[in-house]
Amino acid sequence: MPRPCREEEIEQVMDHPIPLSGYGQGMSHPHPELKAAPPLPEGGLRVIALGGLGEIGRNMTVFEHAGKLLIVDCGVLFPEETQPGVDVILPDFTSIRDRLDDVVAVVLTHGHEDHIGGVPYLLRERSDIPVVGSKLTLAFLEAKLKEHGIRPRTVRVREGDRRGFGPFDCEFVAVNHSIPDSLAVAIRTRAGMVLHTGDFKMDQFPLDDRITDLRAFARLGEEGVDLFLTDSTNAEVPGFTTSERELNPAIEQVMRTAPRRVIVSSFASHVHRIQQVLDAAHQHGRKVAFVGRSMVRNMGIARDLGYLKVPSGLVVSTKELEKLPDHKIALVCTGSQGEPMAALSRMANRDHLIRIGKGDTVLLASSLIPGNENAIYRVINGLTRWGAHVVHKGNAKVHVSGHASAGELVYCYNIVKPRNVMPVHGEWRHLRANADLAIRTGVDPDRVVIAEDGVVVDLVDGRASITGKVPAGNVYVDGMEVGGATEASLKDRLTLAAEGVVTVVAIVDADTGALAEAPDFLARGFVHDDATFEPVIPVIEKTLATAAEEGVGDARQLEQLLARAVANWAFRTYRRKPLIIPVVIDA
Amino acid sequence: MPRPCREEEIEQVMDHPIPLSGYGQGMSHPHPELKAAPPLPEGGLRVIALGGLGEIGRNMTVFEHAGKLLIVDCGVLFPEETQPGVDVILPDFTSIRDRLDDVVAVVLTHGHEDHIGGVPYLLRERSDIPVVGSKLTLAFLEAKLKEHGIRPRTVRVREGDRRGFGPFDCEFVAVNHSIPDSLAVAIRTRAGMVLHTGDFKMDQFPLDDRITDLRAFARLGEEGVDLFLTDSTNAEVPGFTTSERELNPAIEQVMRTAPRRVIVSSFASHVHRIQQVLDAAHQHGRKVAFVGRSMVRNMGIARDLGYLKVPSGLVVSTKELEKLPDHKIALVCTGSQGEPMAALSRMANRDHLIRIGKGDTVLLASSLIPGNENAIYRVINGLTRWGAHVVHKGNAKVHVSGHASAGELVYCYNIVKPRNVMPVHGEWRHLRANADLAIRTGVDPDRVVIAEDGVVVDLVDGRASITGKVPAGNVYVDGMEVGGATEASLKDRLTLAAEGVVTVVAIVDADTGALAEAPDFLARGFVHDDATFEPVIPVIEKTLATAAEEGVGDARQLEQLLARAVANWAFRTYRRKPLIIPVVIDA
Repeated sequence: MPRPCREEEIEQVMDHPIPLSGYGQGMSHPHPELKAAPPLPEGGLRVIALGGLGEIGRNMTVFEHAGKLLIVDCGVLFPEETQPGVDVILPDFTSIRDRLDDVVAVVLTHGHEDHIGGVPYLLRERSDIPVVGSKLTLAFLEAKLKEHGIRPRTVRVREGDRRGFGPFDCEFVAVNHSIPDSLAVAIRTRAGMVLHTGDFKMDQFPLDDRITDLRAFARLGEEGVDLFLTDSTNAEVPGFTTSERELNPAIEQVMRTAPRRVIVSSFASHVHRIQQVLDAAHQHGRKVAFVGRSMVRNMGIARDLGYLKVPSGLVVSTKELEKLPDHKIALVCTGSQGEPMAALSRMANRDHLIRIGKGDTVLLASSLIPGNENAIYRVINGLTRWGAHVVHKGNAKVHVSGHASAGELVYCYNIVKPRNVMPVHGEWRHLRANADLAIRTGVDPDRVVIAEDGVVVDLVDGRASITGKVPAGNVYVDGMEVGGATEASLKDRLTLAAEGVVTVVAIVDADTGALAEAPDFLARGFVHDDATFEPVIPVIEKTLATAAEEGVGDARQLEQLLARAVANWAFRTYRRKPLIIPVVIDA
Repeated sequence: MPRPCREEEIEQVMDHPIPLSGYGQGMSHPHPELKAAPPLPEGGLRVIALGGLGEIGRNMTVFEHAGKLLIVDCGVLFPEETQPGVDVILPDFTSIRDRLDDVVAVVLTHGHEDHIGGVPYLLRERSDIPVVGSKLTLAFLEAKLKEHGIRPRTVRVREGDRRGFGPFDCEFVAVNHSIPDSLAVAIRTRAGMVLHTGDFKMDQFPLDDRITDLRAFARLGEEGVDLFLTDSTNAEVPGFTTSERELNPAIEQVMRTAPRRVIVSSFASHVHRIQQVLDAAHQHGRKVAFVGRSMVRNMGIARDLGYLKVPSGLVVSTKELEKLPDHKIALVCTGSQGEPMAALSRMANRDHLIRIGKGDTVLLASSLIPGNENAIYRVINGLTRWGAHVVHKGNAKVHVSGHASAGELVYCYNIVKPRNVMPVHGEWRHLRANADLAIRTGVDPDRVVIAEDGVVVDLVDGRASITGKVPAGNVYVDGMEVGGATEASLKDRLTLAAEGVVTVVAIVDADTGALAEAPDFLARGFVHDDATFEPVIPVIEKTLATAAEEGVGDARQLEQLLARAVANWAFRTYRRKPLIIPVVIDA
């Protein structure tokens, strides 16, 4: 069971009174009725999210103005349990595919997969699109693109910079997030100014002292923000996201009290989390080794670029580490989300050189992303079973979110005082909660637009409104292929998973239309023995006989009849609906 | 993202300092090396959990003494995403199947599915086993058994009762849990006394004023508890589980402030949660209707037996409800865990007569059981998308756990002062945390036994120790069948889900061993078009040619060769591993 709420949380309910329902034009109705949008009026600005609205992930927003396109972020979405075999999900590029030459730039707000993971696939379609981002963001992107054999055209920017890309005049603003060097972007056009926060929070004491630049937000607000796109991820969470530094006591306690080795797992891009781990290890005389490809790679990059400060001699190879006594050892590895192939899962299964044992302490300095709970708990149970003590979000304060909670968002709205608001980055419940917050700070409900992926929002004469929609389905990357899975094939896969498959091979006498020999049954995922299918043979004979009487001789037609007959039999007999694959062969 | 930890929680880390690792005999090593247990010494007591250890669910503990067996609870486990198509999972009765005549009784601690759900399947094997439980527990059980067409032999007991069942002298003790009328059981035998808490917590202000009877725990402790089996579910959770009554402010606020209808979803057995909902609705002039089969049935039972107090005229039919203005309406329905067929999910999909719309408020007064998060969030997003405001655990205090947290467990250990401890009801992480708590209260680490399902624990001469193991696998109920799925078929299903299936039909010339005609390919869950399989035909021809040279003519052998060839081709070409079903027919 998840941990129960506790007393202190009662006030938090009160901090966040239940808003009245149903405000805002986008808000209380979905958009099935939307048609293709009319042409964008001269001088207007069009905003279309191809990802990130109605979901957490594959963030991608396309801005159109004066015949040109500016893209902000291009991320991937990770599949749910209802999307088996899918590696990642991309935004649907259909609506911009024939306008790629109009794209003046892709601006990346930060280096997380759900913001940069789709770039390789976009650059496959046009390789010379300028990619704009901060130093660390571009470094993470370039490492990724290298694996795809792509060398991007990059434009490095930093907070305070102002750059024109076609008709889009972009100013970059420092924001604080769970990865360093994140940026918000203010986009000035003749249609008005857009402020897009990207992912952000407002930690007032970040490890790098680089806080979200509310003075810039205020200045832009003074100038006039016509459309405010803001991170909805934690809009439902009352109060304020606490500071990254507040994890120090728990991390420090582990390094101090653990009787033997400490194994820490966290996100491979969370430089500040790892910084705290390194500092605590150093303080208590433990040496550190990085384990796991992405951890080693990213921390190398962060160190080389000066984002990760590593006391000399602290980080060593796992080989050197083995020479030390256990209480001098700390490992930092991947797998905090229970990914089966990652280092930590393999340790939990005793399938790794690091053999977890009695007295080891494992620290999961990470969140439990919804959908990963069971996988994560499997890892925790496995580690515990081998005698390790596991410290995690459920029993210690070892994680804070990277996103602004309701209280922080309210500050932003009151500082920016936007004319129109479009919540981004979130499922419906998050977008809706964020919209409620905007309205409670005084934004006109009719200027709060809740859109979904593909919904066209036009900013014309200073007013944002929904004018239509474009295609924005899921594009599945599966194996080596983009489009390696479709909604239809996933539906089949779920049936196969729940019910199994039965192949029926019937050799039919072309003259009589009757069985030439006993049919063959091959079942997988459907429990059976030699006798299971005997009772269905008369059913098949009857089906063929009826078909013959009615003069149905075509093999494909017979296959359909057989499939239906066998499916009905399986359901009548076992209340199961296996996928039936009929094969009729004329003899 | 889950909600971040907040400041108040820092102390809670400190409340619960990290224990040293690796105490206790069962604790730091799993039990693969265990063999069958030796015969139970004369006068000893044997304890075997057939479910509930290493998992949350299908709780079942078998006690053996003087040649007789006493069973405490017989529940079901609900499947994970890695067990597709499975309805429920039962304990494995193998080890008691040939001793059913020695079973003197099945004692049920309370009426939750994970404690009573397996009873119908046990009674199928021997229908006249006496079933012992409290009034409400037996009423819920009998309603369930009716659906199975079974009339049980029941023995109704209440707190304070003391009954002998063969050599087991059972005393029943009141405990507080998330369902009324729950009992702990003290089992006196010549080998010593066992105290089994069942599921419990220590709410000091429960709605029915029936608190966990710590005075009885103290008295039993004075007499001497030789083996203490105690609920581990929340052992990792620092502090104390707050009172059910503390949900009142949030529930009351919803009933007061909701502009239109209120739809509440909760567990259909949570009588006190529903009582609070009814009281708040009544207070604010809303009439209530129950929606969903199990909710209607259970609340009917609870009302008839006096556990649910319903002001006259408060509860009406949905038909009558429709005549009232929206702000006078409250519905109480099933589906709080996102079950696709339950009322709430269907409302979220507009597939229910209750059409959710702008201004409706939905209250999910329930937990998010790990693994259900995505399903629950899908429902919340669906409801939000139609304009409803959704109040849930993530944004309000609308749930407390039914299980004792670490602080409560420590009280129990200090009051009972048991000689031996065996944590029950939990995954490894919970069992381990509970064991750590026992040890911190002074229980000898060597007398703390962490066992898994099927591990044999013998209490001999006042000392509990692990002596062997018995079979305790998963028994899957799937469709109408017990054993309708096996580990092997589930493995196939997961492959089918991730990779799809390709059936290859090759008609082979019996004389030449070559293809008599072009092979047929039938693929599901594996994206393909007419051209996809063309490149594999030469591969098949080559395989058949090689086989012919080597004189391999048998159809089954050829099928194996074809399967391997096609599988290799699919992986080389698409990095996919579809299940290949080869069909070779001699022409």
